[in-house]
Amino acid sequence: MTTGTPAPFTAADYRARMERAARSAADAGLAGVLVAPGPDLVWLTGYHVPADTERLTLLVLAEGQEPTLVVPTLEAPDAAKAAGADAMTLRDWTDGKDPYAVAAPLLGARGATGRFGVSDNAWAMHLLGLQRTLPDTSYVSLTEALPMLRGVKDAAELERLAAAGAAADATYEEIRKTTFAGRKESDIARELADLLRQFGHSQVDFTVVGSGPNGANPHHEASDRVIQDGDMVVLDFGGLKHGYGSDTTRTVHVGEPTDEERRVHDIVREAQTAACDAVRPGIACQEVDRVARQVITDAGYGEYFIHRTGHGIGVTTHEPPYMIEGEEQPLVPGMCFSVEPGIYLPGRFGVRIEDIVTVTEDGGRRLNATARDLAIVG
Amino acid sequence: MTTGTPAPFTAADYRARMERAARSAADAGLAGVLVAPGPDLVWLTGYHVPADTERLTLLVLAEGQEPTLVVPTLEAPDAAKAAGADAMTLRDWTDGKDPYAVAAPLLGARGATGRFGVSDNAWAMHLLGLQRTLPDTSYVSLTEALPMLRGVKDAAELERLAAAGAAADATYEEIRKTTFAGRKESDIARELADLLRQFGHSQVDFTVVGSGPNGANPHHEASDRVIQDGDMVVLDFGGLKHGYGSDTTRTVHVGEPTDEERRVHDIVREAQTAACDAVRPGIACQEVDRVARQVITDAGYGEYFIHRTGHGIGVTTHEPPYMIEGEEQPLVPGMCFSVEPGIYLPGRFGVRIEDIVTVTEDGGRRLNATARDLAIVG
Repeated sequence: MTTGTPAPFTAADYRARMERAARSAADAGLAGVLVAPGPDLVWLTGYHVPADTERLTLLVLAEGQEPTLVVPTLEAPDAAKAAGADAMTLRDWTDGKDPYAVAAPLLGARGATGRFGVSDNAWAMHLLGLQRTLPDTSYVSLTEALPMLRGVKDAAELERLAAAGAAADATYEEIRKTTFAGRKESDIARELADLLRQFGHSQVDFTVVGSGPNGANPHHEASDRVIQDGDMVVLDFGGLKHGYGSDTTRTVHVGEPTDEERRVHDIVREAQTAACDAVRPGIACQEVDRVARQVITDAGYGEYFIHRTGHGIGVTTHEPPYMIEGEEQPLVPGMCFSVEPGIYLPGRFGVRIEDIVTVTEDGGRRLNATARDLAIVG
Repeated sequence: MTTGTPAPFTAADYRARMERAARSAADAGLAGVLVAPGPDLVWLTGYHVPADTERLTLLVLAEGQEPTLVVPTLEAPDAAKAAGADAMTLRDWTDGKDPYAVAAPLLGARGATGRFGVSDNAWAMHLLGLQRTLPDTSYVSLTEALPMLRGVKDAAELERLAAAGAAADATYEEIRKTTFAGRKESDIARELADLLRQFGHSQVDFTVVGSGPNGANPHHEASDRVIQDGDMVVLDFGGLKHGYGSDTTRTVHVGEPTDEERRVHDIVREAQTAACDAVRPGIACQEVDRVARQVITDAGYGEYFIHRTGHGIGVTTHEPPYMIEGEEQPLVPGMCFSVEPGIYLPGRFGVRIEDIVTVTEDGGRRLNATARDLAIVG
C-alpha cells in the first residue's frame, strides 16, 4: 500500500496505442475506428471528456492516417491539454455547424464505402448522423469487431491493476473488523467508499452491501436495512486507482452460520477456486464460466447461479472479455478479469466470492489476496 | 428556500407521459419510441438505471401497445421498484441470450419496416443490434424526431425548476460574500458545490470558476489558479434539486474594474436583458439567439461571443430546445431554457450572465432573480 504514484503515460504511449488500434482494425478488415468519449478515448488519448454531451467528440483512427479528434470548439482547449494530445490532430467545429460534415472527410472521400468500428457507447444520434452523411459506410460495435482492443494489458497497466487490487484488499481487511450487527447496509457502504478513497482510489464505482435476503439480489447495492445477527452479508466493491480498476467480493456472516449457510459458501468457494485454477492461455472465456458453473450445478444449486462468471477490468471496472457461455475468445497473457460465481436463494441469502485474475504465460494470477473463507463478523 | 419536498410523481403521471410520447410519435409518422437509460427514461418511467452498462435496457412505446421495458434479469427487481413501474410491463432477458431478439417483437412482426425514434444517448452498439435484427426498420434520434418530447413542462415540473433556481440564487448570494482574492478557483468551486447541496441539491453538475484569463475559455471548469485582485471571475453552477435542474451564471470582479471591464459587462447584461425580453410564445428559438447576438455584434464584440445563447433544462441541466441560429422551433408556454450570452477576450477575461427563463402565455419569466450588475467582491 505504500507504493507511490506510477509514472504517467506519455504521448508516445498513447501514440503506440492508437497505432495498434488502427493496425488491428485494418487486420480485421475495417476502414478505421471511431472512438467516442468514455473509456476507449481515455485509453487511447488520455482525454477525459468532462461531460458526455450531445456535442460530437470523435477520434478517427485509420492506418496510414494521422489520428484526428473531432471536437467542439468550446472543448478544444481541454482536449489540447490531454496527455495524448501531441499524438493527434484536433479538428474543431463550432455550434451551428454540422459536425458530421466535419468528420466525414476523415472517414474517406464522398461516397466512402468503408466499414468502421465504433465505440459501443457512442451516442445513437451520432451514429445516425454518420449513417445519414455517408450512406454507403457501415458500422460495427468495437466490442464485436475488436473486443480485445483494450483487453490485453501491458506491464504498466498490470502494475496499476495490482495496486488497485491491493487497495481493495486493504479495504476488506479494515471492514471485516467493523461491527455489522445493528448498522444499516448504507452505513457499511459509506465506510467501504471512505476506505477505498483512503487507500488511494480516486473514484468509487460501487459498494454493494447485501445483507440477508438482499444478498439474494446480485444487483442490490445498499439499502436502509439494518443488518442483524445471523445475516449473511455480500460485500462487493471497487473503483479506480491511478486510472485502473478494482473489484472484489467477499461474503461474511454476522455470528455463527448455519450448516446450510456454511455449505453454500463452501460450494461457491470451491467453484471460484476451480475457475481461477482453470485460467491459462488458450482456453476460451466460456471455459472459465463452465468450470465454475459445473461445480455449482453438481452441488445442486445450478439454477441459483444467475449471472455470468466474470468480466474484464482495466480503465473501467466492467468491460470485455466476458466469462460467459458462448464467448469463444481464447485467453491471452495480460488479460485481466473477475472470477465471481455466486449462489442466490431468493428471499433468504446470497453468497458471492470474487477476485481479479490476470492471465500469465502458463496460468493465472490473482490480484486479490484476502482469505476466501467465510469470515465471522460482529 | 423553505418550501418542502414536492409530492412525488405517480404511476398515473408516468402513464400520461408515456401515452403522450406514443401519440406524439404516431403524429410524427413514427412507429414508436425506443428509450434508453438516461433522462428520457427517468422522465417517462421514474426509473434511474444505476449504471449505464453494455446490457440492453430499452423502453418500447408505440400507440395502442402496452409500454414495455426490456431489462436485464439482474436489474428487473430495481426496475420493478420505479415509480412508473405499474404503468409498464417488464420483459427481462438473461446473460447469454440475445437481447435484440427479445426487443424485436415489440417493434413489430418479423420484417417490420417501421421508423422509430431512439434516445440520442442510446448506445451505438444497441442501435446496431436492432438494425441487424430488423434490417428493414429505420431510426431517427429523438432530438431530431421529437425534440420537444420533454420540452414543455407542466405545473409540477415548473414548481421544481423554480425551486432549483431559487436554491442556485441562494448559493450566489452566499458566494458573493466570500473572499476571492488569494484563494484557488477550485476552493471557490468546492464552496459552490457545498452551498448547492446545502440548499437542497441532490446532484451538482458543474461549478465553473473562471478567473482572469481562464474566464475567456467558456468551457473552463476550475483550476488551481489563485484568484487575484483585479480579476474578473465567471461563476457558472448548477445541478439537480428534487430531480430538476438549476443553471445560473454571474460574473463578479475582485476589486474595482477597469472602464473596459465595466463596458464589456454592460454589453453582456444588455444582450441578456434584450434576449430575455424577447421571449414569448411563437417566436423561433433562433430569434432569442439573434437578439442577444445583435447587441454584442453592434457593440463590436460579435467575434468574441463564441457559443449559442442557451439550452433547455428539465430533468437534466442541458437539453433541447437550443437557442441557436438555425433552430426554427417556435417557443411554447412551459418551455424552460437558459439565456446566457457572453464575451470572451482570449488571454484576458470573460463575462457571461445566465438566467433560466420559462415561456409564459404572453412572454417570459426568469427563474433566477439575483442582481445582474457587476458585483464587486473582495
